Amino acid sequence: MGKRQVNPSEKQELKRSICPVSCVLDILGDKWTLLVVRDMFMGKKTYGEFQKSPEKIPTNILAERLKRLAQSGVIEKSQYQERPVRYAYTLTEKGRGLAPVLTAIMSWGNEYVPGTYPADEFKPMFTRQVATQKSGAVKDK
Amino acid sequence: MGKRQVNPSEKQELKRSICPVSCVLDILGDKWTLLVVRDMFMGKKTYGEFQKSPEKIPTNILAERLKRLAQSGVIEKSQYQERPVRYAYTLTEKGRGLAPVLTAIMSWGNEYVPGTYPADEFKPMFTRQVATQKSGAVKDK
Repeated sequence: MGKRQVNPSEKQELKRSICPVSCVLDILGDKWTLLVVRDMFMGKKTYGEFQKSPEKIPTNILAERLKRLAQSGVIEKSQYQERPVRYAYTLTEKGRGLAPVLTAIMSWGNEYVPGTYPADEFKPMFTRQVATQKSGAVKDK
Repeated sequence: MGKRQVNPSEKQELKRSICPVSCVLDILGDKWTLLVVRDMFMGKKTYGEFQKSPEKIPTNILAERLKRLAQSGVIEKSQYQERPVRYAYTLTEKGRGLAPVLTAIMSWGNEYVPGTYPADEFKPMFTRQVATQKSGAVKDK
């Protein structure tokens, strides 16, 4: 991994209220952001990998979401190649803290939206990745 | 409570993928929908009550979200007054199933977004309401 880009201060958006639900939706409340976070939990790191996901995120939306997620301190961007310059995006501790939000969403989806693929095999991955990244012992794929 | 309006079939939107995260975001992925759901967990039922929330949901967005939530089977609309006609909106079982999603969001907000009000006193309400509504023993306020 190359140099890590650090946000000197996480961007403070104008809050609609001090309700935690409202404040979280100010960061994550749209159709795409949590899909990019999901992809990072699955080990995806590059622009190209995010674009290959089945939902086919439009490139302008992906660029904007990655920028906003970095500003909010949910992800960090690091350069992994010089020529041509290429970046990798990974979850910060704050981002990895979203595992319970994603597992709750997956459980609800599995229970109430017919035809979704079962997330049971897939949910433990979230917990494992959080554990290994916290210990720093295992490099996430 | 007056006549309950029943959806003959919950509207099936075009899915972006069969990932449960993606399918849930097709229903709830925006800045407003989960705030209306939050309000219903807090006991709010009418258009006027939703509009009094601190985030000041615009009236056209509120109308559209209530319609979509009813189409998705998350809420139901019932007439509680004849002259003038007035409606109440309440969570269905599917909607009450969102309690773990909201509590996970609140926990993350409390941990990572500075200045949010602590949801600890407030989270048990979600669990209680689900329990009492499931048993049918207590009328929700």
